[in-house]
Amino acid sequence: GARHGPSLMPGGPAAAYERVRLILEAAAARINGEPCVTHLGTGSAGHYVKMVHNGIEYGLMQLIAETYDLMKRGLGMNAEALAAVYENWNQGELGSYLLEITAHIFRRTDEVKAGMPLIDMILDRARQKGTGKWAVSEAMELQVPTPTIDVAVMMRNLSGNPAARKAAEGMLLGPAAPFEGDAGRFIGGLGNALFNSFLGTYAQGMALLQSASAVYGYGLHLEAVARIWRGGCIIRAALLEDIRAAYQTSPDLPNLMLDPHIGREINLRQGDLRSVVRTAVDLGLPAPGLAASLAYFDACRSAWLPANLISAQRDYFGAHTYERIDAPGIFHTEWSKD
Amino acid sequence: GARHGPSLMPGGPAAAYERVRLILEAAAARINGEPCVTHLGTGSAGHYVKMVHNGIEYGLMQLIAETYDLMKRGLGMNAEALAAVYENWNQGELGSYLLEITAHIFRRTDEVKAGMPLIDMILDRARQKGTGKWAVSEAMELQVPTPTIDVAVMMRNLSGNPAARKAAEGMLLGPAAPFEGDAGRFIGGLGNALFNSFLGTYAQGMALLQSASAVYGYGLHLEAVARIWRGGCIIRAALLEDIRAAYQTSPDLPNLMLDPHIGREINLRQGDLRSVVRTAVDLGLPAPGLAASLAYFDACRSAWLPANLISAQRDYFGAHTYERIDAPGIFHTEWSKD
Repeated sequence: GARHGPSLMPGGPAAAYERVRLILEAAAARINGEPCVTHLGTGSAGHYVKMVHNGIEYGLMQLIAETYDLMKRGLGMNAEALAAVYENWNQGELGSYLLEITAHIFRRTDEVKAGMPLIDMILDRARQKGTGKWAVSEAMELQVPTPTIDVAVMMRNLSGNPAARKAAEGMLLGPAAPFEGDAGRFIGGLGNALFNSFLGTYAQGMALLQSASAVYGYGLHLEAVARIWRGGCIIRAALLEDIRAAYQTSPDLPNLMLDPHIGREINLRQGDLRSVVRTAVDLGLPAPGLAASLAYFDACRSAWLPANLISAQRDYFGAHTYERIDAPGIFHTEWSKD
Repeated sequence: GARHGPSLMPGGPAAAYERVRLILEAAAARINGEPCVTHLGTGSAGHYVKMVHNGIEYGLMQLIAETYDLMKRGLGMNAEALAAVYENWNQGELGSYLLEITAHIFRRTDEVKAGMPLIDMILDRARQKGTGKWAVSEAMELQVPTPTIDVAVMMRNLSGNPAARKAAEGMLLGPAAPFEGDAGRFIGGLGNALFNSFLGTYAQGMALLQSASAVYGYGLHLEAVARIWRGGCIIRAALLEDIRAAYQTSPDLPNLMLDPHIGREINLRQGDLRSVVRTAVDLGLPAPGLAASLAYFDACRSAWLPANLISAQRDYFGAHTYERIDAPGIFHTEWSKD
C-alpha cells in the first residue's frame, strides 16, 4: 500500500518562478529529437523528482569544487589553466552544463579589479535554499544511502564560517609535502575520478526515486526521468544517455552501477578514483565528496559489511535483537552473563 | 531571540523506558566523586542533549565497525585476536563503554553452533530507531556540519540489503592486492586514527549543541554536558575528561579541536589517520566514517575552501548572488554576457 507523499513546500515565489522557468526551458529543448518534458507520475511526483534533481545538483557541484581544490591548492594552477581543463573535460564523456559554466566562470575577469580572474575575488562561503537538505532528510527517512549528496550539503554548511577556518589553520596541522608526480597524468585520473563520482551521485538519486516511487506510489519510470534530465536542466550531462539506456533495458535495476555497461565503465576507472582520494589525503586537502563516492562504491560491492558488530552492540546495550546468518527470525543474547 | 525548540517525539514507550533506565543508571554512577546527572537547560534541552548523545553514539559505533572491518577483511584477524585488540585499546586513552562491550562481544561463543564466535553468526544488517536520522536532520537544519554522524546513519541504511550487496560483489571490481606491511604497526596507527575520529565526532556533536543552545535559547553549559556523559551513558569514555576540561577553560570554544591540549593530541595523530584512510582505499574496504572524520579535520583547518566556485555557479544559473573577499555586500554578475 502506498503512503501519501510528503508535503513538498514549493519554497516561496522565487522557487516557483524557477520551476516555471525550467519547465519552459525544458519544453523548448529537444535532445535527439525527443522532448524534455513528460508527465512523471501521480501526486507530488513532479515536485519529488525536482527535489532529487537538486540533491544530485548539490552532489555534482561539490565534486567539481573538490577537483578545483586539488588542482588549485594541490597543483598550484591558476584560473586560466583551470578553464582549459574544464573546457577539455566538457568536450568528452564528462560533457555537462555544470562543467560548461565552470569553464566560463574561470575565464571571467573581474570588473572591479581589472585583469584579475573574478573567481579569485569571490568569498568561499556557499549558501543554499534548502532542497539539498530536504533530499538528505527524505533519503534518511526512506533509508536510502545518498552519501555524496549528504556531503555536499554538509560542506556548504562547513564553508559558512570562513573566520573560524582561518583561526584553525595555524592550530591544526596537516602534511607539508607538496604534490609530487606528473601533473598531466594526475589531471587525467582526476577526470576519471569525477566521472565515476558523477555516476555514483546519479545512482544515489535514482535509488532514492525508486524507493520513493514504491513507498508513495508515484509510478515513476526512471527511464523517463533520465530522458527529461538530458535537456534544459542544471544536471544535464552526456552520461544521462547511458543512464536512460540502462533503465530502458532494466526498468527495475536495483542500482544504476549494476547495469552491465555502466558497471564496466566504473570498473575501468575505479583505480583512478582511489588514486585521487589517496592524493587528497596525502596533500591534506579535504575531498569528502570524492571519498564518499568511493566508499559508496566499495560498500555497495561488499557482500559482507561489519554491520553485524553494530547489531551485536545494539543488542548488548539495548536488547534491540539481531538476525542470524543461518536461521530466520529475531534473536537476543544475555551478553552480560559472561 | 530564541526560537522554540523542535518538538522532540519521545519515540514510543520503549524509548521512554530506555531514557528512564539511563537516568537511573546515571544517577547511581559517580565519576571522580561527581554525580552524572544535572539540570541541563530550559525547555526541551534534556531531550535535545539525549538526541545528540545518540548521534555521537551512531558515529562512534560506525567508526569501531570500520576498525573491525580493516582488521578482519584487511588483516584476516579472527574474533579472538580482535577481542585482544579492543581489550588493549580499552585499557588506554580509548577507554570507553563501547570498546569494552566490543571486546566482550568478540569473546562470546555461540550457543547454537558450539565453539563458533557468536559475532560470526550475526547478520550484517544494522537496524535503527531514528534518533541518528533525527540528529542529522537537526544538524542540517541548523547548518552545523556533522559528517561522521551523517555517514553512520547512511551506512546503517546501506547495510539494509545484504542480498543486493552479494549480487554486486561479482560485478563491481576493486583492488586485488592484500595488505602488505607490519600488522602490529598498522593496528597501533589504527588506534590513533580511532582516537582522532572519536574526538572529531564529539566535536561535531558539541558544535550542534552549541548552535542549538543559541538558536533555541537552551542555555546549555557544554562543560556540564561532558561531565554527565562521563558516566552511565553509552558514549562514556576516558576522553570526555579532556573534553570537560576544554569547556571548563573556554565555555564558548568555537570547535572542540581548537582547545590547545586537544588540538595538540589531534595533531600528533593526524598522520596515522591519513595512513589508515589510505590503506582502506588501497584495500578496497569502505571506511567512510574514518574518511569523513579526516575530511572534517582538513576542511575545518582550511583557511580557504573551493566554495567560491559553488557560489559562482549558483549565481551563474540562478542569480543567487555571491560575496566578495574585498568588499562587504552582495554581488551579481551577468555571466552569459561573454
